[in-house]
Amino acid sequence: MNTFGRLFRISIFGESHGECVGITIDGCPAGLALSPDDMLPDLERRKGGQGKGTTPRKEDDYPLIKSGVFNGKTTGFPITILFENKNIRSEDYEKQRSIPRPGHADWVAHQKFGGNEDYRGGGHFSARLTTGIVAAGVIAKKLMPGITIHATVTEIAGEKNTELGLQKAIDAKDSVGGIVECRVAGLPVGLGEPYFDSIESVLSHALFAIPAVRGVEFGTGFAAVTMFGSEHNDAIENMDGTTRTNHAGGVVGGITNGNELVFRIAIKPTSSTPKEQNSLNWDTGKTEDFSVKGRHDLCVALRAPVIVEAVTAIVLADFLLLGQKIKRVL
Amino acid sequence: MNTFGRLFRISIFGESHGECVGITIDGCPAGLALSPDDMLPDLERRKGGQGKGTTPRKEDDYPLIKSGVFNGKTTGFPITILFENKNIRSEDYEKQRSIPRPGHADWVAHQKFGGNEDYRGGGHFSARLTTGIVAAGVIAKKLMPGITIHATVTEIAGEKNTELGLQKAIDAKDSVGGIVECRVAGLPVGLGEPYFDSIESVLSHALFAIPAVRGVEFGTGFAAVTMFGSEHNDAIENMDGTTRTNHAGGVVGGITNGNELVFRIAIKPTSSTPKEQNSLNWDTGKTEDFSVKGRHDLCVALRAPVIVEAVTAIVLADFLLLGQKIKRVL
Amino acid sequence: MNTFGRLFRISIFGESHGECVGITIDGCPAGLALSPDDMLPDLERRKGGQGKGTTPRKEDDYPLIKSGVFNGKTTGFPITILFENKNIRSEDYEKQRSIPRPGHADWVAHQKFGGNEDYRGGGHFSARLTTGIVAAGVIAKKLMPGITIHATVTEIAGEKNTELGLQKAIDAKDSVGGIVECRVAGLPVGLGEPYFDSIESVLSHALFAIPAVRGVEFGTGFAAVTMFGSEHNDAIENMDGTTRTNHAGGVVGGITNGNELVFRIAIKPTSSTPKEQNSLNWDTGKTEDFSVKGRHDLCVALRAPVIVEAVTAIVLADFLLLGQKIKRVL
Amino acid sequence: MNTFGRLFRISIFGESHGECVGITIDGCPAGLALSPDDMLPDLERRKGGQGKGTTPRKEDDYPLIKSGVFNGKTTGFPITILFENKNIRSEDYEKQRSIPRPGHADWVAHQKFGGNEDYRGGGHFSARLTTGIVAAGVIAKKLMPGITIHATVTEIAGEKNTELGLQKAIDAKDSVGGIVECRVAGLPVGLGEPYFDSIESVLSHALFAIPAVRGVEFGTGFAAVTMFGSEHNDAIENMDGTTRTNHAGGVVGGITNGNELVFRIAIKPTSSTPKEQNSLNWDTGKTEDFSVKGRHDLCVALRAPVIVEAVTAIVLADFLLLGQKIKRVL
Repeated sequence: MNTFGRLFRISIFGESHGECVGITIDGCPAGLALSPDDMLPDLERRKGGQGKGTTPRKEDDYPLIKSGVFNGKTTGFPITILFENKNIRSEDYEKQRSIPRPGHADWVAHQKFGGNEDYRGGGHFSARLTTGIVAAGVIAKKLMPGITIHATVTEIAGEKNTELGLQKAIDAKDSVGGIVECRVAGLPVGLGEPYFDSIESVLSHALFAIPAVRGVEFGTGFAAVTMFGSEHNDAIENMDGTTRTNHAGGVVGGITNGNELVFRIAIKPTSSTPKEQNSLNWDTGKTEDFSVKGRHDLCVALRAPVIVEAVTAIVLADFLLLGQKIKRVL
Repeated sequence: MNTFGRLFRISIFGESHGECVGITIDGCPAGLALSPDDMLPDLERRKGGQGKGTTPRKEDDYPLIKSGVFNGKTTGFPITILFENKNIRSEDYEKQRSIPRPGHADWVAHQKFGGNEDYRGGGHFSARLTTGIVAAGVIAKKLMPGITIHATVTEIAGEKNTELGLQKAIDAKDSVGGIVECRVAGLPVGLGEPYFDSIESVLSHALFAIPAVRGVEFGTGFAAVTMFGSEHNDAIENMDGTTRTNHAGGVVGGITNGNELVFRIAIKPTSSTPKEQNSLNWDTGKTEDFSVKGRHDLCVALRAPVIVEAVTAIVLADFLLLGQKIKRVL
Repeated sequence: MNTFGRLFRISIFGESHGECVGITIDGCPAGLALSPDDMLPDLERRKGGQGKGTTPRKEDDYPLIKSGVFNGKTTGFPITILFENKNIRSEDYEKQRSIPRPGHADWVAHQKFGGNEDYRGGGHFSARLTTGIVAAGVIAKKLMPGITIHATVTEIAGEKNTELGLQKAIDAKDSVGGIVECRVAGLPVGLGEPYFDSIESVLSHALFAIPAVRGVEFGTGFAAVTMFGSEHNDAIENMDGTTRTNHAGGVVGGITNGNELVFRIAIKPTSSTPKEQNSLNWDTGKTEDFSVKGRHDLCVALRAPVIVEAVTAIVLADFLLLGQKIKRVL
Repeated sequence: MNTFGRLFRISIFGESHGECVGITIDGCPAGLALSPDDMLPDLERRKGGQGKGTTPRKEDDYPLIKSGVFNGKTTGFPITILFENKNIRSEDYEKQRSIPRPGHADWVAHQKFGGNEDYRGGGHFSARLTTGIVAAGVIAKKLMPGITIHATVTEIAGEKNTELGLQKAIDAKDSVGGIVECRVAGLPVGLGEPYFDSIESVLSHALFAIPAVRGVEFGTGFAAVTMFGSEHNDAIENMDGTTRTNHAGGVVGGITNGNELVFRIAIKPTSSTPKEQNSLNWDTGKTEDFSVKGRHDLCVALRAPVIVEAVTAIVLADFLLLGQKIKRVL
């Protein structure tokens, strides 16, 4: 299912080279001021074509709000937003149809959907679908004015100096991956539950939905395995729950503890690389050399921060609507 | 909510030092032979007291099947399994009630539940709750006879030689973390979907529900960010979808591709360490030195493999019941 | 939430006098031939303007399929369908804004959404939202070629001769209600479960979502309370489960028994009546006489059969995808 | 699935003649005083053996609270309650195994579960499962001290004088059905939504989960179809939303309007009747005369009010936790 969330729920639809992609946001409270303009800055950040290492495709991602907004405010009913697909060159993809691109979903999609999948530009698998997620993220952010979410690329191609990492890709004419770190300040204590509704569980669920994400870690993450317990434990310093260190990344027992929420994701090198590759040709049943045509990012990690922020905002808005405290009703 | 799964659904309940912990498994097909004995080997693996670095507490984890099994077979209705809590020494914990243990959920639980939480032995937050999960994992494994799931500790305290890592902990009289790797063979092509029902999303959701997990990565994971796309992409070799390498860890576009499913989790050092620590005392509002009493594992990662296998089996059984192919009905 | 279904899931959005209404269908298997033309006959049945007692508003309900269909077949991904709103005369409704119409949701919507609701033409409450449901019903019906679903108006204004009942309304210049009966043939044995996933539970959930429905009964329904058990029980006649009578309406213990599924719904008189009414004026805080302007049906029950069929098809497709038998996997 | 609810969620398990039946309540807020004694009065009402027309089976329904309560208060974690099955005479049922009882689920269960179902005493289909629901209802009622829920039998065997209706059954030595009406006072305005989360949809879903329910109607219900719109519409009288009449039964557009919530359910004659019946014998493949042995109620409707109240309380607690108003967070 293409739906996520309990009380703030998003549903995505559309294909990369179909008529449009879009999203429906259900559960947004009534009375929130909302216009397409609110979404443009984040959509601009997601869009390619601005810098080194991102694709020159101009997608003109203007959000068409089709429902749920009246007189400039949310009505409390589902908000459906469409993004028309323009400037499409499907023929680039048609040519490679006989070779399922390695790293892409071409082969599994064909097996799973029996050849009925829309294969043009990745179809429903395309990161173009994240356009709607970014729009929903803007709404979620607006619901939480006191909370700041900030994601940045902290590493490209193994280099902490990201410009250097990107240059590696340009020099090698090959795609590269990166790490995105996200920090959230202003969260109340008490969001999340132990086990299946832990902040980590729900957030990782949403983060791994972003194409190309291969790892998620909270706080000190994988590095925690080289520490002793006495080092890793964050001593509580005062009655507000402020901790001396923040190895936990702001979550203990699945619940926010009022300190900064910190997590990182690993994004693999873009599957579409300018480099020549060798893979199976469906028609011949043999492998052959080929190269992927079309416009692609050398490093999709560069586009990821705004998507990570959106996903984070969506998850946290949902937790906030659920209520951070379980308390007596009436 | 303490529930997970769509068609194979588990619900956990209970507290570490309450009367029992337990689980209900709903959605298990009818006609599967099942007895408590089937569960004993995996429950034994989860139990402490056998080796270095695990707690000497003897929990006598005998599964009491209260429903859903008739004449030695599942009926198709909910299977509820209880594990009585025996050999409890709650007084160990009472003594430290005034100091919320760092790394534990004591402080957040108190804030969230207003002091109504069962704080003894971690209450509902306790890893004791994983007993039921292991039992459910046994059922899930029995549903998938052709699929093998194997998890192992591949690193302790930063050492690939795990004995060495454990010795570090014993020497330092401090707790340590570790890495658990899980490999699944025999999966059909086509489980999972892109985005929110991706294998990675659903599996990470369940894995982060295991106490002490701080990171999850698939295939090459975080190391992928140092590779070029042309290196990371797994070339498809034949019509079965076998790939030359398996950097993807068996999942592309959120869907299994028929190669081995591979992922790793990072487990933090046990929060309860024999070392003296400094943290807040609720009664005085000041920090003080203290040490945690009670029986604890120096390295909970040692107990984790069977839990990771159980969680994996539960998730995969759910995907298998959903059907790996979306096809026409009737 | 505006979503229904487990594996065949619909999500509705839109407002009566907004830009459009629409629906997203998620979970439809890949490879089903589908075009807008398939939907036109049922959409035509739903539309007003053809006969006595239905509104002359011409809505031009042409389904714009925005996603999920490629080369004339479903892809296995979400199908989003829009219906543009044309021929709108919102000013008719504006005039009555100060008087919440009795029988309508005006007053509760205002209380619940704080005045942010789109009040024009009933907004999201409008039966115009059922357009999408009818479209989804067409897809569901196509998934189940062997199953026939047939709903008819069996009573209007208390008259089994529906023409007579309608004439009552025309003569009295007042709106009237009716009863719709639905019969489903060709269902396999074994759909549904006892308790919360019973056929009756899930079907009534969906049926009561149709505006104006005030009662739902299965088989003999309310009349069963005047029968003895020995009369009401349906004797099984043969190994196929054929019963001598069908007081159960094809469902026993929440599960289909292979006999015809039969149920009825009660539809209240249209809330918008040409008759003068007395109700509260928000601006004055006093009651006053008024009459509802605009185009309305004297008997919405006449439009209901195709909606009832759609809802039934959606529910049954979901049950069929879940599988009528709970059986061993792999 | 045997689960119901969104934020106040119940999961039932167990079989009539197995070891126990039980329920898990997840989502109950922390801090609610709760003891087994609180449940005894409602459990007593549900139990048979007290009056004419109910079975003499003494079930000794003592609720064993196994989790989620600590120091006499709820902890915010799942509450699991068991009821041991005592005084079981399974042999009564064994004898009739070759004849699937008409009106019962014997035949469909056998087809669906392939003979693996626990057939003794109806197994999981048994109304004995409602014991847990009544216990959960007590908790739900305690969460809503200002709301009163009152259900009564208003008709037996077609007689408004219920004593008379019951005498009919005794005289005829046959089982009979009845009507239960439920009234809820004290509800706030604004619970529910149009379409799939309407009060009617969610409540009917839960009500049809009660064994033997064949119809559900709100307000005037089926009788509304004989009224004109101008008669049926409830005029709003004042700014509190009080209506002159209450044909809507307190729900408009799926949302509570602050007036009394009123609905009725039809309960069929008990399937087990002392009368001789004719039905299929599985072993011979032919029909034959037989009579049902064992202890049974002549009129299960008599036991239903407390179950209807429980189901209603569970649904309303869930709606109250969801929040009657959709408002801005933070």
